[in-house]
Amino acid sequence: MKKADKFVKNAAGRIVPTIVNGREVIPFKGINKYRPEHRGAAPRVPTCIDYPEDGNKIVDSLKEALIRSGVKDGMTISTHHHYRDGDYIANVIFDIVAELGLKDLRWVPSAAFPCHQPIIKHLESGVVNHIEGSLNGPLGDFCSRGKMRGLGYLRSHGGRFRAISDGELHIDIAVMAASAADMMGNANGVLGKHPFGPMAFTKADVRYADRTIVVTDTLLDFPCYPWEIMGNDVDYVVVVDEIGDPQKIVSGTTKITQSPDRLLIAEYCAKFVEAAGILKDGMNFQAGAGGTSLAFVYFIQQMMLEKGFKARSMVGGSTKFLVEMMEKGLTDYIFDGQAFGLEAISSLRDNPKHIPIGVFESYDFHAKGNLTRMMDVIVLGSTEVDINFNANCVSHSDGRMLHGIGGFQNCMLAKCTIIAVPSFRDRIPVIRDEVTTLVAPGELVDVIVTERGIAINPRRKDLIAATLNSGLPIRDIRDLKKEVDRICGIPAQPRLSDEAVAVVEWIDGTILDTLKKVEE
Amino acid sequence: MKKADKFVKNAAGRIVPTIVNGREVIPFKGINKYRPEHRGAAPRVPTCIDYPEDGNKIVDSLKEALIRSGVKDGMTISTHHHYRDGDYIANVIFDIVAELGLKDLRWVPSAAFPCHQPIIKHLESGVVNHIEGSLNGPLGDFCSRGKMRGLGYLRSHGGRFRAISDGELHIDIAVMAASAADMMGNANGVLGKHPFGPMAFTKADVRYADRTIVVTDTLLDFPCYPWEIMGNDVDYVVVVDEIGDPQKIVSGTTKITQSPDRLLIAEYCAKFVEAAGILKDGMNFQAGAGGTSLAFVYFIQQMMLEKGFKARSMVGGSTKFLVEMMEKGLTDYIFDGQAFGLEAISSLRDNPKHIPIGVFESYDFHAKGNLTRMMDVIVLGSTEVDINFNANCVSHSDGRMLHGIGGFQNCMLAKCTIIAVPSFRDRIPVIRDEVTTLVAPGELVDVIVTERGIAINPRRKDLIAATLNSGLPIRDIRDLKKEVDRICGIPAQPRLSDEAVAVVEWIDGTILDTLKKVEE
Repeated sequence: MKKADKFVKNAAGRIVPTIVNGREVIPFKGINKYRPEHRGAAPRVPTCIDYPEDGNKIVDSLKEALIRSGVKDGMTISTHHHYRDGDYIANVIFDIVAELGLKDLRWVPSAAFPCHQPIIKHLESGVVNHIEGSLNGPLGDFCSRGKMRGLGYLRSHGGRFRAISDGELHIDIAVMAASAADMMGNANGVLGKHPFGPMAFTKADVRYADRTIVVTDTLLDFPCYPWEIMGNDVDYVVVVDEIGDPQKIVSGTTKITQSPDRLLIAEYCAKFVEAAGILKDGMNFQAGAGGTSLAFVYFIQQMMLEKGFKARSMVGGSTKFLVEMMEKGLTDYIFDGQAFGLEAISSLRDNPKHIPIGVFESYDFHAKGNLTRMMDVIVLGSTEVDINFNANCVSHSDGRMLHGIGGFQNCMLAKCTIIAVPSFRDRIPVIRDEVTTLVAPGELVDVIVTERGIAINPRRKDLIAATLNSGLPIRDIRDLKKEVDRICGIPAQPRLSDEAVAVVEWIDGTILDTLKKVEE
Repeated sequence: MKKADKFVKNAAGRIVPTIVNGREVIPFKGINKYRPEHRGAAPRVPTCIDYPEDGNKIVDSLKEALIRSGVKDGMTISTHHHYRDGDYIANVIFDIVAELGLKDLRWVPSAAFPCHQPIIKHLESGVVNHIEGSLNGPLGDFCSRGKMRGLGYLRSHGGRFRAISDGELHIDIAVMAASAADMMGNANGVLGKHPFGPMAFTKADVRYADRTIVVTDTLLDFPCYPWEIMGNDVDYVVVVDEIGDPQKIVSGTTKITQSPDRLLIAEYCAKFVEAAGILKDGMNFQAGAGGTSLAFVYFIQQMMLEKGFKARSMVGGSTKFLVEMMEKGLTDYIFDGQAFGLEAISSLRDNPKHIPIGVFESYDFHAKGNLTRMMDVIVLGSTEVDINFNANCVSHSDGRMLHGIGGFQNCMLAKCTIIAVPSFRDRIPVIRDEVTTLVAPGELVDVIVTERGIAINPRRKDLIAATLNSGLPIRDIRDLKKEVDRICGIPAQPRLSDEAVAVVEWIDGTILDTLKKVEE
């Protein structure tokens, strides 16, 4: 089986395969051009007959649960990434699978992190054929070097949910870490020894996988409530000593930036939002957990306090900053798909206005609308942008795939999507003629904010008009690029071979771009 | 198309059709004998492209929403029954459909009530071919008299969820009343002018219907939270003056019985639960909203207070009595699928330990377990029982189908299922040689409690042993029957024709019994 075959040029002008890991795929057709004509996934129908009458689904070990789940060659196993770099479970799964002598499995994590480096040995030995999911760090680098047997397959959070519920990505066994669970499998991420927050990234897995295993280090009396995972969806419960380290969720991203440049970027973002008339009482907005985003939230908070505004909702990745804003009465609700830090986790547990949401609610494109489309503004970071407002968040300019898509593509549907980036990093320009990897088509990027000025997408005449006399440094993106190139010099091209190593899926399931092997 | 065809005798000894309204069905094979081998329903895959960018799905009228949803001859339309006898929406739907000149529609309410009598004219005219769903009162009587074109089809609450999610019952258009909604379709039943409580009976409809219309009389700012219905699942939102009358939810059922006989029955139930060792700290139990059940709850409450016990969870139909118990600290949680009365609704809205649950969680048999199986005891009423512990809750002894199944069949899976009934009503014996309609096989009925004594199913040797020296009037059910027959005389047989008018489905989707036409 070829990793990738039958390449064509798609509507974004990118050369993409039409066969990926043996499955036929559809090239990107343009924004809002591909309409699904099929019906969705039809899950296995279980029956209570096959589950213990007393509700007790505990088995002795993860190995036993995997064997009872019928694990075999070629199967697809999923995990979630709510522990991010502190996950203890995925490595153990594939050690067990290797011990069982199995091969050619597919791992579909909602994201992989540096802590999952031990899985490289299983990729090398063939126990794992390939990974479909965000690859942060060493696994991404491994893939970029052309060492993975199958093709890497990058989906956004919303795209992963869509692929599973559309029936394109079938999960045989979902192994879901939960910080607390009962014997029936009711489980959550807010109670127990090592709480991590909401369980957004488990919803599709649990609903559609043939088998679901809950792994916990804290067994509670029935019923374990809240039940973000319901026991009705669970086959086996495994109790282990420790499932993960919540300290490693934050990975140093959740501090307000100290960099004067980045503070300036955040301030520009906030002032732009104000000047454009987006900042208003009852607004809904989303901001990430990175340093610049947090600074943006800080500035927005100051403006809201000054004007007496209150947000209707804020969508997280939640941090202590969002929690503080809610506690100050600056928002009615926090909707939360991933908690960063203990303050966020305890707020989620204790404050009924701090609400866990799933990926379906927030991001699914094959739904009848979603929360992201209701957001007045979203601020995001990226690795590169280009003069056509295209954006990249998965590869560096040397072509190495080191980050996942996360919600990046999904957030493009907000009413105003702002990419906040420094104009260069380590003397490498962030504004390019063409992004190395196309992750978000420029049509959907409304504003790019750098420390050297703000570029508004020419399509957004409304935003251009609204900010015309704002005194903000609104500039043509080509001018910005020229200025940066004068400082940094014209950047070197990445050294890439013709060999495809991964593809980027667009939110509608079509193939947007191909990542090439990076030459050593 | 024949209403019912190809009759066979099933494992319960009942003669049932194998073709119902043109669809092939499976005769009951015995408890835990039928295993599903198929995959479940594959819902239509929508796309955000087809939904308004600003999220505003409001259309001018229900008529417009139905037309935009593509309503046409032969379609299936669903509604929920959370307003019970106070629902204003179902009648309007079929008036519109009649006005549009359509015919042969199928209505699949989660239950119909006397307030839906106006739909009889649409059944007579052929606008509605038949109803699949619980038929309380006049519609049931209409069906029993053989006047419905298609065959009536009775499913339990859990069975209805199962049929929809298994792909056996496809809904074209779900019309869901919500006491509050926003323009995107996020909706609940606890806010707004006419709150009614949880929205358990909307979950399958909304997830699997091709089109979902939310009808509300209270439009709130986005986001309307809690969102028991999520806007991501909604096609259109309609705002009307009034959607229903919450005063008519209770229908006089939610007062503790004043009848000395029924109080005695309730007291026997409670004492039995105590004697059998079921009453314990941390127990989980469910009790309905009828007068005897409420009295049972009252006695249990007294015992718990005396012994210092606390329940882990109580499952409702919730009433002010359950709410009072929670407020007294007698339970950790109330799980609630239907609120009876304002106290229950406001508790559900305000108390984070009073939790709305769906039918999937509580009752679905084609799941990996469910809440009912975790209940230590459930007390239910019924219209008839027989000497083999079979039970009937849908027809009277004259054969007229006047009640729905509700959760009756689903509750049979509890660890101890008690049927609490008077031994006769209006001089008609409740204990029979054979139930007129088989709704719950005797294998699953553990205890029958009457004012004349308690009959324990011989299969439950554990309960017999545990209560041997309890001093309770434990009696053989045949003795009980003889005593009642001496008082009432041998009851007349119902006057039934051979014509099938409805079937009763078992929780696994097989056909358990047939209801026959009642002769005038």
